[in-house]
Amino acid sequence: MEGYWLFLVLLVSALLLGFLSVLFALVWVFHYREGLSWDGGSAEFNWHPVLIITGFIFIQGIAIIVYRLPWTWKCSKLLIKFIHAGLNTIAMILAIVSLVAVFDFHNAKNIPNMYSLHSWIGLTAVIFYTLQLVLGFAVFLLPFAPVSLRASLMPIHIYSGLLIFATVIATALMGVTEKLIFALKTPAYSTSPPEAIFVNTLGLLIVIFGALILWMATRPHWKRPPEQNSKIQQPNGGTPEGTEEESTVTDCSNTDKSDVEFNSEAAARKRNLKLDEVGQRSTM
Amino acid sequence: MEGYWLFLVLLVSALLLGFLSVLFALVWVFHYREGLSWDGGSAEFNWHPVLIITGFIFIQGIAIIVYRLPWTWKCSKLLIKFIHAGLNTIAMILAIVSLVAVFDFHNAKNIPNMYSLHSWIGLTAVIFYTLQLVLGFAVFLLPFAPVSLRASLMPIHIYSGLLIFATVIATALMGVTEKLIFALKTPAYSTSPPEAIFVNTLGLLIVIFGALILWMATRPHWKRPPEQNSKIQQPNGGTPEGTEEESTVTDCSNTDKSDVEFNSEAAARKRNLKLDEVGQRSTM
Repeated sequence: MEGYWLFLVLLVSALLLGFLSVLFALVWVFHYREGLSWDGGSAEFNWHPVLIITGFIFIQGIAIIVYRLPWTWKCSKLLIKFIHAGLNTIAMILAIVSLVAVFDFHNAKNIPNMYSLHSWIGLTAVIFYTLQLVLGFAVFLLPFAPVSLRASLMPIHIYSGLLIFATVIATALMGVTEKLIFALKTPAYSTSPPEAIFVNTLGLLIVIFGALILWMATRPHWKRPPEQNSKIQQPNGGTPEGTEEESTVTDCSNTDKSDVEFNSEAAARKRNLKLDEVGQRSTM
Repeated sequence: MEGYWLFLVLLVSALLLGFLSVLFALVWVFHYREGLSWDGGSAEFNWHPVLIITGFIFIQGIAIIVYRLPWTWKCSKLLIKFIHAGLNTIAMILAIVSLVAVFDFHNAKNIPNMYSLHSWIGLTAVIFYTLQLVLGFAVFLLPFAPVSLRASLMPIHIYSGLLIFATVIATALMGVTEKLIFALKTPAYSTSPPEAIFVNTLGLLIVIFGALILWMATRPHWKRPPEQNSKIQQPNGGTPEGTEEESTVTDCSNTDKSDVEFNSEAAARKRNLKLDEVGQRSTM
Protein backbone atom coordinates (compact mmCIF):
# COMPACT_ATOMS: atom_id res chain seq x y z
CA MET A 1 0.00 0.00 0.00
CA GLU A 2 1.39 3.37 -1.07
CA GLY A 3 1.76 5.75 1.88
CA TYR A 4 0.93 3.04 4.43
CA TRP A 5 2.48 4.83 7.40
CA LEU A 6 0.72 8.09 6.60
CA PHE A 7 -2.55 6.17 6.37
CA LEU A 8 -1.81 4.56 9.74
CA VAL A 9 -1.03 7.91 11.37
CA LEU A 10 -4.23 9.44 9.98
CA LEU A 11 -6.30 6.42 11.00
CA VAL A 12 -4.95 6.45 14.58
CA SER A 13 -5.52 10.23 14.72
CA ALA A 14 -9.10 9.82 13.46
CA LEU A 15 -9.80 7.06 16.01
CA LEU A 16 -8.33 9.17 18.82
CA LEU A 17 -10.37 12.20 17.74
CA GLY A 18 -13.50 10.05 17.46
CA PHE A 19 -13.05 8.53 20.92
CA LEU A 20 -12.18 11.95 22.34
CA SER A 21 -15.35 13.43 20.81
CA VAL A 22 -17.51 10.72 22.45
CA LEU A 23 -15.64 11.26 25.73
CA PHE A 24 -16.18 15.03 25.50
CA ALA A 25 -19.90 14.48 24.84
CA LEU A 26 -20.13 12.27 27.95
CA VAL A 27 -18.18 14.75 30.10
CA TRP A 28 -20.45 17.51 28.79
CA VAL A 29 -23.68 15.78 29.80
CA PHE A 30 -22.40 14.25 33.08
CA HIS A 31 -20.11 17.00 34.38
CA TYR A 32 -21.74 20.17 33.02
CA ARG A 33 -25.35 19.02 32.46
CA GLU A 34 -27.93 16.71 34.04
CA GLY A 35 -26.52 13.33 33.01
CA LEU A 36 -28.55 10.71 31.15
CA SER A 37 -31.99 9.26 31.88
CA TRP A 38 -35.29 8.68 30.06
CA ASP A 39 -37.75 10.83 32.03
CA GLY A 40 -38.83 13.57 29.61
CA GLY A 41 -36.44 16.04 31.23
CA SER A 42 -33.11 17.56 30.22
CA ALA A 43 -31.33 14.29 31.03
CA GLU A 44 -33.41 12.62 28.30
CA PHE A 45 -32.51 15.37 25.83
CA ASN A 46 -28.85 14.67 26.64
CA TRP A 47 -29.08 11.33 24.85
CA HIS A 48 -29.41 13.39 21.66
CA PRO A 49 -25.84 14.80 21.48
CA VAL A 50 -24.30 11.64 22.98
CA LEU A 51 -25.95 9.27 20.46
CA ILE A 52 -25.47 11.58 17.48
CA ILE A 53 -21.75 11.99 18.17
CA THR A 54 -21.27 8.28 18.96
CA GLY A 55 -23.39 6.82 16.18
CA PHE A 56 -24.08 9.37 13.50
CA ILE A 57 -20.56 10.85 13.48
CA PHE A 58 -18.00 8.40 14.93
CA ILE A 59 -19.50 5.06 13.79
CA GLN A 60 -20.61 6.50 10.42
CA GLY A 61 -17.06 7.82 9.90
CA ILE A 62 -15.55 4.39 10.56
CA ALA A 63 -18.17 2.76 8.29
CA ILE A 64 -17.07 5.09 5.47
CA ILE A 65 -13.40 4.10 5.60
CA VAL A 66 -13.78 0.40 6.43
CA TYR A 67 -13.04 -0.60 2.80
CA ARG A 68 -9.76 1.28 2.98
CA LEU A 69 -8.22 -0.58 5.93
CA PRO A 70 -5.42 -2.55 4.24
CA TRP A 71 -5.67 -5.43 6.75
CA THR A 72 -9.18 -6.18 5.42
CA TRP A 73 -8.05 -6.48 1.79
CA LYS A 74 -7.39 -10.20 2.23
CA CYS A 75 -10.99 -10.61 3.42
CA SER A 76 -13.80 -11.09 0.92
CA LYS A 77 -15.44 -7.90 -0.32
CA LEU A 78 -18.82 -9.32 0.68
CA LEU A 79 -17.69 -9.54 4.32
CA ILE A 80 -16.53 -5.92 4.25
CA LYS A 81 -19.84 -4.91 2.66
CA PHE A 82 -21.66 -6.57 5.56
CA ILE A 83 -19.44 -4.71 8.06
CA HIS A 84 -20.02 -1.41 6.14
CA ALA A 85 -23.80 -1.99 6.10
CA GLY A 86 -23.82 -3.22 9.72
CA LEU A 87 -21.97 -0.18 11.07
CA ASN A 88 -24.25 2.15 9.11
CA THR A 89 -27.31 0.30 10.45
CA ILE A 90 -26.06 0.75 14.03
CA ALA A 91 -25.45 4.45 13.29
CA MET A 92 -28.97 4.82 11.85
CA ILE A 93 -30.57 3.15 14.89
CA LEU A 94 -28.64 5.38 17.29
CA ALA A 95 -29.62 8.44 15.25
CA ILE A 96 -33.31 7.49 15.33
CA VAL A 97 -33.21 6.81 19.12
CA SER A 98 -31.54 10.21 19.56
CA LEU A 99 -34.40 11.81 17.59
CA VAL A 100 -36.98 10.06 19.78
CA ALA A 101 -35.18 11.44 22.86
CA VAL A 102 -35.38 15.02 21.62
CA PHE A 103 -39.02 14.75 20.43
CA ASP A 104 -39.95 13.20 23.82
CA PHE A 105 -38.18 16.03 25.65
CA HIS A 106 -39.86 18.70 23.51
CA ASN A 107 -43.31 17.15 23.98
CA ALA A 108 -42.86 16.84 27.76
CA LYS A 109 -41.76 20.50 27.98
CA ASN A 110 -44.28 21.83 25.41
CA ILE A 111 -41.48 23.02 23.16
CA PRO A 112 -42.46 22.99 19.45
CA ASN A 113 -40.79 20.39 17.25
CA MET A 114 -39.15 21.00 13.88
CA TYR A 115 -38.97 24.79 13.97
CA SER A 116 -35.19 25.26 13.65
CA LEU A 117 -32.86 25.00 10.67
CA HIS A 118 -30.99 22.39 12.72
CA SER A 119 -34.11 20.22 12.87
CA TRP A 120 -34.98 20.73 9.19
CA ILE A 121 -31.54 19.72 7.94
CA GLY A 122 -31.04 17.06 10.63
CA LEU A 123 -34.29 15.22 9.86
CA THR A 124 -33.57 15.47 6.13
CA ALA A 125 -30.14 13.92 6.76
CA VAL A 126 -31.66 11.02 8.75
CA ILE A 127 -34.23 10.37 5.99
CA PHE A 128 -31.59 10.44 3.23
CA TYR A 129 -29.28 8.26 5.35
CA THR A 130 -32.04 5.66 5.74
CA LEU A 131 -32.79 5.80 1.99
CA GLN A 132 -29.07 5.43 1.26
CA LEU A 133 -28.90 2.37 3.52
CA VAL A 134 -31.99 0.71 2.02
CA LEU A 135 -30.92 1.45 -1.57
CA GLY A 136 -27.35 0.36 -0.83
CA PHE A 137 -28.61 -2.92 0.63
CA ALA A 138 -30.91 -3.57 -2.32
CA VAL A 139 -28.41 -2.69 -5.02
CA PHE A 140 -24.98 -3.61 -3.66
CA LEU A 141 -25.62 -6.39 -1.12
CA LEU A 142 -28.52 -8.36 -2.55
CA PRO A 143 -27.44 -10.30 -5.66
CA PHE A 144 -30.30 -9.17 -7.91
CA ALA A 145 -29.21 -5.79 -9.29
CA PRO A 146 -27.64 -5.90 -12.75
CA VAL A 147 -24.01 -4.87 -12.79
CA SER A 148 -24.75 -1.91 -15.07
CA LEU A 149 -27.09 -0.53 -12.40
CA ARG A 150 -24.41 -1.05 -9.73
CA ALA A 151 -21.86 0.72 -11.90
CA SER A 152 -24.11 3.71 -12.55
CA LEU A 153 -25.24 4.02 -8.93
CA MET A 154 -21.84 3.59 -7.23
CA PRO A 155 -20.59 7.17 -7.85
CA ILE A 156 -23.90 8.50 -6.50
CA HIS A 157 -23.71 6.14 -3.49
CA ILE A 158 -20.18 7.33 -2.65
CA TYR A 159 -20.97 11.01 -3.21
CA SER A 160 -24.23 11.00 -1.26
CA GLY A 161 -22.60 9.01 1.56
CA LEU A 162 -19.86 11.61 1.96
CA LEU A 163 -22.33 14.49 1.53
CA ILE A 164 -24.64 13.09 4.24
CA PHE A 165 -21.64 12.60 6.55
CA ALA A 166 -20.55 16.22 6.05
CA THR A 167 -24.13 17.44 6.46
CA VAL A 168 -24.49 15.49 9.73
CA ILE A 169 -21.36 17.21 11.07
CA ALA A 170 -22.69 20.62 9.99
CA THR A 171 -26.00 19.81 11.70
CA ALA A 172 -24.19 18.76 14.89
CA LEU A 173 -22.36 22.10 14.91
CA MET A 174 -25.73 23.90 14.62
CA GLY A 175 -27.07 21.75 17.46
CA VAL A 176 -24.10 22.55 19.68
CA THR A 177 -24.63 26.24 18.96
CA GLU A 178 -28.35 26.05 19.82
CA LYS A 179 -27.81 24.09 23.03
CA LEU A 180 -25.06 26.40 24.32
CA ILE A 181 -27.19 29.51 23.66
CA PHE A 182 -30.26 27.96 25.33
CA ALA A 183 -28.49 26.30 28.28
CA LEU A 184 -25.91 28.91 29.23
CA LYS A 185 -27.72 31.85 30.84
CA THR A 186 -25.87 32.65 34.08
CA PRO A 187 -23.10 32.94 33.07
CA ALA A 188 -24.10 33.46 29.44
CA TYR A 189 -22.44 31.76 26.43
CA SER A 190 -21.03 35.16 25.41
CA THR A 191 -18.97 35.36 28.63
CA SER A 192 -17.11 32.16 27.66
CA PRO A 193 -17.61 30.07 30.82
CA PRO A 194 -15.66 26.77 31.05
CA GLU A 195 -18.58 24.78 29.55
CA ALA A 196 -18.61 27.06 26.47
CA ILE A 197 -14.87 26.61 25.89
CA PHE A 198 -15.17 22.85 26.48
CA VAL A 199 -18.09 22.33 24.07
CA ASN A 200 -16.63 24.66 21.42
CA THR A 201 -13.54 22.42 21.59
CA LEU A 202 -15.81 19.39 21.10
CA GLY A 203 -17.11 21.10 17.94
CA LEU A 204 -13.54 21.54 16.65
CA LEU A 205 -12.72 17.87 17.39
CA ILE A 206 -15.72 16.79 15.32
CA VAL A 207 -14.69 18.99 12.38
CA ILE A 208 -11.11 17.65 12.40
CA PHE A 209 -12.40 14.06 12.70
CA GLY A 210 -14.65 14.65 9.67
CA ALA A 211 -11.79 16.24 7.69
CA LEU A 212 -9.56 13.20 8.33
CA ILE A 213 -12.27 10.73 7.33
CA LEU A 214 -12.99 12.67 4.11
CA TRP A 215 -9.27 12.79 3.24
CA MET A 216 -8.80 9.05 3.80
CA ALA A 217 -12.01 8.22 1.91
CA THR A 218 -11.08 10.21 -1.21
CA ARG A 219 -7.41 9.29 -1.81
CA PRO A 220 -7.42 7.13 -4.97
CA HIS A 221 -4.24 5.23 -3.99
CA TRP A 222 -5.82 4.06 -0.71
CA LYS A 223 -8.78 2.40 -2.40
CA ARG A 224 -9.24 -1.34 -1.85
CA PRO A 225 -7.50 -2.93 -4.85
CA PRO A 226 -9.85 -5.12 -6.95
CA GLU A 227 -6.97 -7.57 -7.56
CA GLN A 228 -7.12 -8.71 -3.95
CA ASN A 229 -10.61 -10.16 -4.23
CA SER A 230 -10.95 -13.90 -4.24
CA LYS A 231 -13.76 -14.87 -6.62
CA ILE A 232 -15.96 -13.21 -9.19
CA GLN A 233 -19.62 -13.36 -8.23
CA GLN A 234 -21.58 -15.06 -10.99
CA PRO A 235 -25.12 -15.47 -9.67
CA ASN A 236 -26.45 -16.74 -13.01
CA GLY A 237 -23.53 -19.02 -13.68
CA GLY A 238 -22.56 -17.03 -16.76
CA THR A 239 -19.54 -14.98 -17.66
CA PRO A 240 -19.18 -11.97 -15.43
CA GLU A 241 -19.80 -8.80 -17.39
CA GLY A 242 -20.17 -6.10 -14.81
CA THR A 243 -18.39 -4.08 -12.26
CA GLU A 244 -18.90 -5.87 -9.00
CA GLU A 245 -16.16 -8.27 -8.22
CA GLU A 246 -17.25 -10.12 -5.20
CA SER A 247 -16.16 -13.04 -3.13
CA THR A 248 -18.55 -15.79 -2.26
CA VAL A 249 -16.56 -16.55 0.89
CA THR A 250 -17.15 -14.37 3.89
CA ASP A 251 -13.99 -14.87 5.91
CA CYS A 252 -10.42 -13.63 5.67
CA SER A 253 -8.79 -17.02 4.99
CA ASN A 254 -8.46 -16.80 1.22
CA THR A 255 -4.70 -16.57 1.11
CA ASP A 256 -4.21 -20.20 0.05
CA LYS A 257 -5.97 -19.92 -3.27
CA SER A 258 -4.29 -21.64 -6.24
CA ASP A 259 -2.53 -19.79 -9.01
CA VAL A 260 -4.87 -21.33 -11.58
CA GLU A 261 -7.91 -19.87 -9.88
CA PHE A 262 -6.15 -16.54 -9.51
CA ASN A 263 -5.25 -16.42 -13.18
CA SER A 264 -8.79 -17.19 -14.34
CA GLU A 265 -10.01 -14.45 -12.05
CA ALA A 266 -7.44 -12.07 -13.44
CA ALA A 267 -8.77 -12.63 -16.95
CA ALA A 268 -12.34 -12.09 -15.81
CA ARG A 269 -11.31 -9.01 -13.95
CA LYS A 270 -9.62 -7.61 -17.02
CA ARG A 271 -12.97 -7.78 -18.82
CA ASN A 272 -14.60 -6.02 -15.89
CA LEU A 273 -12.01 -3.32 -15.52
CA LYS A 274 -13.50 -0.71 -17.82
CA LEU A 275 -16.91 -0.66 -16.17
CA ASP A 276 -15.27 -0.90 -12.75
CA GLU A 277 -13.28 2.21 -13.54
CA VAL A 278 -16.45 4.03 -14.52
CA GLY A 279 -18.41 2.75 -11.59
CA GLN A 280 -16.11 2.98 -8.65
CA ARG A 281 -12.44 3.78 -8.90
CA SER A 282 -12.65 7.14 -10.55
CA THR A 283 -15.52 8.47 -8.53
CA MET A 284 -13.85 10.52 -5.82
CA MET B 1 -17.95 16.49 -23.14
CA GLU B 2 -19.62 13.42 -21.65
CA GLY B 3 -22.95 14.30 -20.00
CA TYR B 4 -22.90 17.87 -21.34
CA TRP B 5 -26.63 18.47 -20.91
CA LEU B 6 -26.64 17.16 -17.34
CA PHE B 7 -23.71 19.45 -16.57
CA LEU B 8 -25.62 22.36 -18.11
CA VAL B 9 -28.76 21.59 -16.07
CA LEU B 10 -26.72 21.35 -12.85
CA LEU B 11 -24.80 24.54 -13.65
CA VAL B 12 -27.98 26.52 -14.35
CA SER B 13 -29.54 25.09 -11.16
CA ALA B 14 -26.47 26.05 -9.13
CA LEU B 15 -26.47 29.57 -10.59
CA LEU B 16 -30.19 29.95 -9.86
CA LEU B 17 -29.74 28.68 -6.30
CA GLY B 18 -26.76 30.97 -5.80
CA PHE B 19 -28.61 34.05 -7.06
CA LEU B 20 -31.67 33.05 -5.05
CA SER B 21 -29.54 32.72 -1.88
CA VAL B 22 -28.13 36.23 -2.36
CA LEU B 23 -31.65 37.54 -3.06
CA PHE B 24 -32.98 35.81 0.08
CA ALA B 25 -30.16 37.34 2.13
CA LEU B 26 -31.07 40.81 0.80
CA VAL B 27 -34.80 40.30 1.43
CA TRP B 28 -33.92 39.06 4.94
CA VAL B 29 -31.95 42.18 5.89
CA PHE B 30 -34.14 44.72 4.05
CA HIS B 31 -37.63 43.30 4.61
CA TYR B 32 -37.29 41.55 7.99
CA ARG B 33 -34.30 43.40 9.53
CA GLU B 34 -32.80 46.88 9.64
CA GLY B 35 -31.31 47.08 6.13
CA LEU B 36 -27.67 47.92 5.47
CA SER B 37 -25.50 50.77 6.75
CA TRP B 38 -22.12 51.29 8.45
CA ASP B 39 -23.07 52.86 11.78
CA GLY B 40 -22.12 50.26 14.42
CA GLY B 41 -25.74 49.15 14.72
CA SER B 42 -27.69 46.10 13.55
CA ALA B 43 -27.70 47.42 9.97
CA GLU B 44 -23.90 47.18 10.00
CA PHE B 45 -24.06 43.63 11.33
CA ASN B 46 -26.34 42.82 8.37
CA TRP B 47 -23.42 43.21 5.97
CA HIS B 48 -22.07 40.01 7.56
CA PRO B 49 -24.66 37.53 6.20
CA VAL B 50 -25.04 39.41 2.90
CA LEU B 51 -21.28 39.47 2.14
CA ILE B 52 -20.66 35.92 3.38
CA ILE B 53 -23.44 34.49 1.21
CA THR B 54 -22.49 36.62 -1.81
CA GLY B 55 -18.72 36.26 -1.60
CA PHE B 56 -17.72 33.39 0.61
CA ILE B 57 -20.43 31.01 -0.66
CA PHE B 58 -21.70 32.04 -4.12
CA ILE B 59 -18.50 33.50 -5.63
CA GLN B 60 -16.30 30.85 -3.99
CA GLY B 61 -18.58 28.14 -5.42
CA ILE B 62 -18.27 29.57 -8.95
CA ALA B 63 -14.48 29.90 -8.50
CA ILE B 64 -14.32 26.19 -7.65
CA ILE B 65 -16.03 25.02 -10.85
CA VAL B 66 -14.63 27.58 -13.28
CA TYR B 67 -12.14 25.03 -14.68
CA ARG B 68 -15.02 22.70 -15.52
CA LEU B 69 -16.98 25.05 -17.78
CA PRO B 70 -16.52 23.42 -21.20
CA TRP B 71 -16.70 26.76 -23.05
CA THR B 72 -13.44 27.79 -21.30
CA TRP B 73 -11.50 24.75 -22.46
CA LYS B 74 -10.40 26.53 -25.63
CA CYS B 75 -8.97 29.31 -23.45
CA SER B 76 -5.47 29.02 -22.04
CA LYS B 77 -5.22 27.36 -18.64
CA LEU B 78 -3.28 30.38 -17.38
CA LEU B 79 -6.26 32.64 -18.13
CA ILE B 80 -8.60 30.31 -16.23
CA LYS B 81 -6.12 30.21 -13.33
CA PHE B 82 -6.25 34.01 -13.20
CA ILE B 83 -10.06 33.91 -13.19
CA HIS B 84 -10.01 31.21 -10.45
CA ALA B 85 -7.56 33.22 -8.33
CA GLY B 86 -9.39 36.49 -9.05
CA LEU B 87 -12.80 35.17 -7.99
CA ASN B 88 -11.27 33.68 -4.83
CA THR B 89 -9.55 37.01 -4.08
CA ILE B 90 -12.88 38.84 -4.41
CA ALA B 91 -14.49 36.24 -2.12
CA MET B 92 -11.68 36.66 0.44
CA ILE B 93 -12.01 40.46 0.43
CA LEU B 94 -15.80 40.27 0.92
CA ALA B 95 -15.31 37.74 3.74
CA ILE B 96 -12.80 40.01 5.50
CA VAL B 97 -15.09 43.08 5.12
CA SER B 98 -17.94 41.00 6.55
CA LEU B 99 -15.75 40.12 9.56
CA VAL B 100 -14.91 43.81 10.08
CA ALA B 101 -18.66 44.58 10.06
CA VAL B 102 -19.42 42.04 12.78
CA PHE B 103 -16.42 43.02 14.97
CA ASP B 104 -17.42 46.69 14.61
CA PHE B 105 -20.99 45.86 15.59
CA HIS B 106 -19.86 43.79 18.60
CA ASN B 107 -17.49 46.50 19.80
CA ALA B 108 -20.14 49.23 19.45
CA LYS B 109 -22.64 47.13 21.42
CA ASN B 110 -20.12 45.80 23.99
CA ILE B 111 -20.76 42.22 22.86
CA PRO B 112 -17.70 39.98 23.33
CA ASN B 113 -15.95 38.80 20.17
CA MET B 114 -14.90 35.23 19.36
CA TYR B 115 -16.87 33.40 22.04
CA SER B 116 -19.03 31.17 19.84
CA LEU B 117 -18.23 27.98 17.95
CA HIS B 118 -19.45 29.85 14.85
CA SER B 119 -16.73 32.48 15.35
CA TRP B 120 -14.00 29.92 16.13
CA ILE B 121 -14.65 27.85 13.02
CA GLY B 122 -15.47 30.88 10.85
CA LEU B 123 -12.24 32.74 11.62
CA THR B 124 -10.26 29.52 11.13
CA ALA B 125 -11.91 29.10 7.72
CA VAL B 126 -11.00 32.68 6.69
CA ILE B 127 -7.39 32.17 7.80
CA PHE B 128 -7.07 28.83 5.94
CA TYR B 129 -8.78 30.36 2.88
CA THR B 130 -6.23 33.19 2.84
CA LEU B 131 -3.36 30.71 3.25
CA GLN B 132 -4.81 28.58 0.45
CA LEU B 133 -4.98 31.63 -1.81
CA VAL B 134 -1.42 32.78 -1.05
CA LEU B 135 0.02 29.27 -1.41
CA GLY B 136 -2.00 28.63 -4.56
CA PHE B 137 -0.72 31.89 -6.07
CA ALA B 138 2.90 31.11 -5.16
CA VAL B 139 2.86 27.50 -6.32
CA PHE B 140 0.42 27.34 -9.24
CA LEU B 141 0.39 30.86 -10.73
CA LEU B 142 3.96 32.11 -10.32
CA PRO B 143 6.33 30.22 -12.65
CA PHE B 144 8.95 29.36 -10.00
CA ALA B 145 7.65 26.21 -8.30
CA PRO B 146 9.12 22.94 -9.61
CA VAL B 147 6.60 20.70 -11.30
CA SER B 148 7.15 17.96 -8.71
CA LEU B 149 6.04 20.38 -5.98
CA ARG B 150 2.98 21.34 -8.04
CA ALA B 151 2.12 17.68 -8.54
CA SER B 152 2.43 16.83 -4.87
CA LEU B 153 0.51 19.90 -3.69
CA MET B 154 -2.37 19.76 -6.19
CA PRO B 155 -4.37 17.00 -4.41
CA ILE B 156 -4.00 18.93 -1.13
CA HIS B 157 -5.01 22.19 -2.87
CA ILE B 158 -8.16 20.57 -4.30
CA TYR B 159 -9.09 18.77 -1.08
CA SER B 160 -8.52 21.77 1.19
CA GLY B 161 -10.41 24.02 -1.23
CA LEU B 162 -13.47 21.78 -1.12
CA LEU B 163 -13.13 21.26 2.65
CA ILE B 164 -12.96 25.02 3.28
CA PHE B 165 -15.99 25.56 1.02
CA ALA B 166 -18.00 22.93 2.95
CA THR B 167 -16.80 24.36 6.27
CA VAL B 168 -17.86 27.86 5.23
CA ILE B 169 -21.36 26.56 4.47
CA ALA B 170 -21.51 24.75 7.84
CA THR B 171 -20.37 27.97 9.54
CA ALA B 172 -23.04 29.97 7.70
CA LEU B 173 -25.70 27.52 8.95
CA MET B 174 -24.43 28.05 12.52
CA GLY B 175 -24.54 31.80 11.98
CA VAL B 176 -28.12 31.68 10.68
CA THR B 177 -29.08 29.61 13.75
CA GLU B 178 -27.43 32.11 16.14
CA LYS B 179 -28.97 35.14 14.47
CA LEU B 180 -32.50 33.71 14.40
CA ILE B 181 -32.32 32.73 18.09
CA PHE B 182 -30.95 36.16 19.10
CA ALA B 183 -33.15 38.29 16.83
CA LEU B 184 -36.51 36.53 17.07
CA LYS B 185 -37.93 37.17 20.53
CA THR B 186 -41.55 38.32 20.05
CA PRO B 187 -42.60 36.11 18.36
CA ALA B 188 -39.83 33.65 19.23
CA TYR B 189 -37.96 31.47 16.72
CA SER B 190 -39.69 28.41 18.23
CA THR B 191 -43.12 29.70 17.14
CA SER B 192 -42.01 29.65 13.48
CA PRO B 193 -42.85 33.23 12.42
CA PRO B 194 -42.54 34.03 8.68
CA GLU B 195 -38.96 35.28 9.10
CA ALA B 196 -37.95 31.93 10.66
CA ILE B 197 -39.46 29.93 7.79
CA PHE B 198 -37.91 32.31 5.24
CA VAL B 199 -34.39 32.16 6.68
CA ASN B 200 -34.55 28.40 7.30
CA THR B 201 -35.36 28.14 3.58
CA LEU B 202 -32.30 30.29 2.84
CA GLY B 203 -30.25 27.74 4.82
CA LEU B 204 -31.61 24.91 2.69
CA LEU B 205 -30.85 26.82 -0.53
CA ILE B 206 -27.24 27.23 0.57
CA VAL B 207 -26.90 23.51 1.37
CA ILE B 208 -28.30 22.47 -2.03
CA PHE B 209 -26.07 25.02 -3.80
CA GLY B 210 -23.06 23.55 -2.00
CA ALA B 211 -24.11 19.99 -2.84
CA LEU B 212 -24.37 20.85 -6.57
CA ILE B 213 -20.97 22.58 -6.61
CA LEU B 214 -19.32 19.62 -4.85
CA TRP B 215 -20.91 17.16 -7.30
CA MET B 216 -19.79 19.14 -10.35
CA ALA B 217 -16.30 19.66 -8.92
CA THR B 218 -15.68 15.97 -8.23
CA ARG B 219 -16.92 14.22 -11.41
CA PRO B 220 -13.77 12.93 -13.14
CA HIS B 221 -15.34 13.06 -16.63
CA TRP B 222 -16.07 16.78 -16.27
CA LYS B 223 -12.50 17.73 -15.60
CA ARG B 224 -10.83 20.15 -18.03
CA PRO B 225 -9.04 17.88 -20.53
CA PRO B 226 -5.26 18.46 -20.70
CA GLU B 227 -5.36 17.84 -24.49
CA GLN B 228 -7.14 21.16 -25.01
CA ASN B 229 -4.24 23.27 -23.76
CA SER B 230 -2.24 25.16 -26.31
CA LYS B 231 1.42 25.16 -25.28
CA ILE B 232 3.60 23.48 -22.71
CA GLN B 233 5.16 25.98 -20.33
CA GLN B 234 8.93 25.66 -20.46
CA PRO B 235 10.27 28.53 -18.35
CA ASN B 236 13.88 27.24 -18.60
CA GLY B 237 13.71 26.39 -22.26
CA GLY B 238 14.26 22.69 -21.60
CA THR B 239 12.13 19.63 -22.14
CA PRO B 240 8.99 19.75 -20.03
CA GLU B 241 9.14 17.09 -17.35
CA GLY B 242 6.37 17.94 -14.98
CA THR B 243 2.67 18.05 -14.54
CA GLU B 244 1.61 21.55 -15.35
CA GLU B 245 0.67 22.01 -18.93
CA GLU B 246 0.15 25.65 -19.41
CA SER B 247 -0.49 28.08 -22.18
CA THR B 248 1.61 31.15 -22.51
CA VAL B 249 -1.26 32.94 -24.26
CA THR B 250 -3.99 34.39 -22.06
CA ASP B 251 -6.89 34.61 -24.48
CA CYS B 252 -9.35 32.12 -26.00
CA SER B 253 -8.14 32.43 -29.60
CA ASN B 254 -5.93 29.37 -29.82
CA THR B 255 -8.05 27.40 -32.26
CA ASP B 256 -5.83 28.11 -35.30
CA LYS B 257 -2.77 26.28 -34.04
CA SER B 258 -0.93 24.10 -36.56
CA ASP B 259 -0.99 20.32 -36.53
CA VAL B 260 2.79 20.21 -36.21
CA GLU B 261 2.70 22.18 -33.02
CA PHE B 262 -0.18 20.10 -31.73
CA ASN B 263 1.67 16.86 -32.40
CA SER B 264 4.83 17.98 -30.65
CA GLU B 265 2.69 18.99 -27.70
CA ALA B 266 0.97 15.62 -27.74
CA ALA B 267 4.31 13.88 -27.41
CA ALA B 268 5.35 16.16 -24.58
CA ARG B 269 2.02 15.63 -22.90
CA LYS B 270 2.41 11.88 -23.10
CA ARG B 271 5.60 12.20 -21.08
CA ASN B 272 3.77 14.36 -18.56
CA LEU B 273 0.74 12.16 -18.26
CA LYS B 274 1.90 9.95 -15.43
CA LEU B 275 2.73 12.78 -13.05
CA ASP B 276 -0.36 14.64 -14.19
CA GLU B 277 -2.48 11.65 -13.22
CA VAL B 278 -0.87 11.56 -9.80
CA GLY B 279 -1.08 15.27 -9.33
CA GLN B 280 -4.51 16.20 -10.54
CA ARG B 281 -6.78 13.91 -12.46
CA SER B 282 -7.17 11.15 -9.92
CA THR B 283 -7.49 13.35 -6.88
CA MET B 284 -11.20 13.60 -6.39
